[in-house]
Amino acid sequence: MLYFEVSEYQERLRKTKEAMQQRGIEVLLVTDPANMNYLTGYDGWSFYVHQGVIVALNRQEPIWFGRQQDSNGARITTWLQDHNVRGYTDDYVQSQVKHPMSFAVDLLKEIGCDRKDLGVEMDNYYFTGRCLDQLRHDLPNDTIKNGDLIVNWVRSIKSAQEIDYLRMASRIAEKVMQTAVDSIDVGVREGDAAANVYHAQISGTAEFTGDYSAIIPIMPSALRTSTAHLSWVDRKYETGDVVLLELSGCKNRYHAPLSRTVYLGKPPAELDEIAKVVIHGLNRTLDFIKPGVTAEQVEETWRHAIAGSRVVKESRVGYAYGLNYPPDWGEHTISLRPGDRTVLRPGMTIHFMPGIWLDRFGFECSEPFLVTENGCETFVDFPRQLFVKE
Amino acid sequence: MLYFEVSEYQERLRKTKEAMQQRGIEVLLVTDPANMNYLTGYDGWSFYVHQGVIVALNRQEPIWFGRQQDSNGARITTWLQDHNVRGYTDDYVQSQVKHPMSFAVDLLKEIGCDRKDLGVEMDNYYFTGRCLDQLRHDLPNDTIKNGDLIVNWVRSIKSAQEIDYLRMASRIAEKVMQTAVDSIDVGVREGDAAANVYHAQISGTAEFTGDYSAIIPIMPSALRTSTAHLSWVDRKYETGDVVLLELSGCKNRYHAPLSRTVYLGKPPAELDEIAKVVIHGLNRTLDFIKPGVTAEQVEETWRHAIAGSRVVKESRVGYAYGLNYPPDWGEHTISLRPGDRTVLRPGMTIHFMPGIWLDRFGFECSEPFLVTENGCETFVDFPRQLFVKE
Repeated sequence: MLYFEVSEYQERLRKTKEAMQQRGIEVLLVTDPANMNYLTGYDGWSFYVHQGVIVALNRQEPIWFGRQQDSNGARITTWLQDHNVRGYTDDYVQSQVKHPMSFAVDLLKEIGCDRKDLGVEMDNYYFTGRCLDQLRHDLPNDTIKNGDLIVNWVRSIKSAQEIDYLRMASRIAEKVMQTAVDSIDVGVREGDAAANVYHAQISGTAEFTGDYSAIIPIMPSALRTSTAHLSWVDRKYETGDVVLLELSGCKNRYHAPLSRTVYLGKPPAELDEIAKVVIHGLNRTLDFIKPGVTAEQVEETWRHAIAGSRVVKESRVGYAYGLNYPPDWGEHTISLRPGDRTVLRPGMTIHFMPGIWLDRFGFECSEPFLVTENGCETFVDFPRQLFVKE
Repeated sequence: MLYFEVSEYQERLRKTKEAMQQRGIEVLLVTDPANMNYLTGYDGWSFYVHQGVIVALNRQEPIWFGRQQDSNGARITTWLQDHNVRGYTDDYVQSQVKHPMSFAVDLLKEIGCDRKDLGVEMDNYYFTGRCLDQLRHDLPNDTIKNGDLIVNWVRSIKSAQEIDYLRMASRIAEKVMQTAVDSIDVGVREGDAAANVYHAQISGTAEFTGDYSAIIPIMPSALRTSTAHLSWVDRKYETGDVVLLELSGCKNRYHAPLSRTVYLGKPPAELDEIAKVVIHGLNRTLDFIKPGVTAEQVEETWRHAIAGSRVVKESRVGYAYGLNYPPDWGEHTISLRPGDRTVLRPGMTIHFMPGIWLDRFGFECSEPFLVTENGCETFVDFPRQLFVKE
């Protein structure tokens, strides 16, 4: 059932422990579902209750803990030995009396780690304020350190096997985007187009099926394209609609995000012009990318490429992505924006996504890419254009 | 664009303020996306960055805050006046330098609420440990109180309009379940069946389309049915597979969860027997439910109904549900289990879900229901049985 060799998980663990030592952390409590998966293989929709993976410098294997009814899931999907899968009873679930972090503290005590320097993923969804306060309350002394993004940064460089899965996800993304472009038309219910998109995401290709994506298909129309993160509603497409498509493929939890834009009818000159500018900027920026340049230099290249046009883009133009769970396929490490001096290195995967949201409509055309030894390679083969259906 | 009359939102706000007063909270910082939606209408996939709604006793309208690029989304989907929609600049996003909770504190200062008793949703996903520490750091004195579940409890009683949406979601859930039962068969790829399920969820009915569900279709097979929360994998169904189906319909973010089980081939006697016991227990329990009984009495009725059988169920057998976003359609208020003395009242909606996960396989048959004036009414019309495909 494992998607990777055990040796690959162990190598990830080795790198994680190295990073822990650099930050003075002896035990790391991993609660980010993507990080839990990355280190152990664990893959279940159980992150709506508290769970985690404990990594201790002095222990070879991590410990998975979660709800009892999910522990068989950990036995099935992880490489951990049975005694490192620890379920808590159901009275810990959404209780006002007992909290699962007390169970985690009991485990820390059992392995003699309750007085060691503990790192927690401080700003991760699923590590709530209550989790933090419960740990502070239950631990004998307050030794809690910020262990945010330790595993995320290890994740930022992809292995050959990970890149294979990203390529499979990209094949799905191409089918998904084609399905969307084909399905959207005047008189079609937006929900029927979205249904086709979902179907394409999961049915995948003739060779392999797909997995659920960490972000739903973002496919707003008309005025709803003036903002990020809205999607379909219960209406029919009309002539004059802009439709933004921020879609994806997913395989074994590895993603391929991809954005394009459709216009129904004869596009206004302003939209045509914006499309031209954005695609020009996108092409120029991709040409620039290679190992050794920084994230902010990539953004600067984009900004210079579109200078003098009417396009203004104030938010970041891309971010690291890969393995993930809802609500985000981004890795929360690299952002293409001023101030991010991360040096790009081979094996990094970034979604270049210069989304434009104006007062009345928007435009999106994006490319996910891999930093290679000499430059970058885009993952997806799909025309960079405004798709016009007249 | 609003799914409810403004007066209904205002009534929700009134009840929320009443509950705040009872808990000594003058300002409530709402970060649960379902609670944000419930009070303001806000509906976007933007909860992967920090955002919130501020409710102050001394202010008529809440304030929405979030990322700048999402603020047009708030203008489109909420009933709030423009000056109560406040976007933060992109340098707050996933930054190691600035945190969006500092922006929230600036807003609290602006409205003269930074020294008032502040409630936060302490154990809600999306309110991270870092959020809590940032508020403690930025506020002039530590006045933070636990405001967990204040809005969730207001949500527990549904209005007529909410019940209408729950009924629409239920029509979708029936189609979704039928699609699953029809699609699953020996030799079919699990991903193709899952694709059909997604398609049915979103295409909905001839009258209305559906929305994305807060939980993916949970549809594991074979050994993977021995645990909760796994789903399809890239394999074909085989003779002898048990397939669990924990599916749903969703309309305007209101859900209809529904579980059934399929067996491919001639079911083993043990599975047949478990199905019989569970369905008997389910029927008995539904007969018992009426206003005035407690959540734990419902569980007790179930436990007595299955006593003496080989079915043992150690986890809760149901929970409140309704409006929600990933990762959960549950409301985190009522749990059908020992110790929960919540008195059932008309308008409450609960998913009775006695999932059974044994060492080698599982069985699920559930019913979402509405507590009525005299008893309860199930939302979904779908046969309660083990679906056998020979």
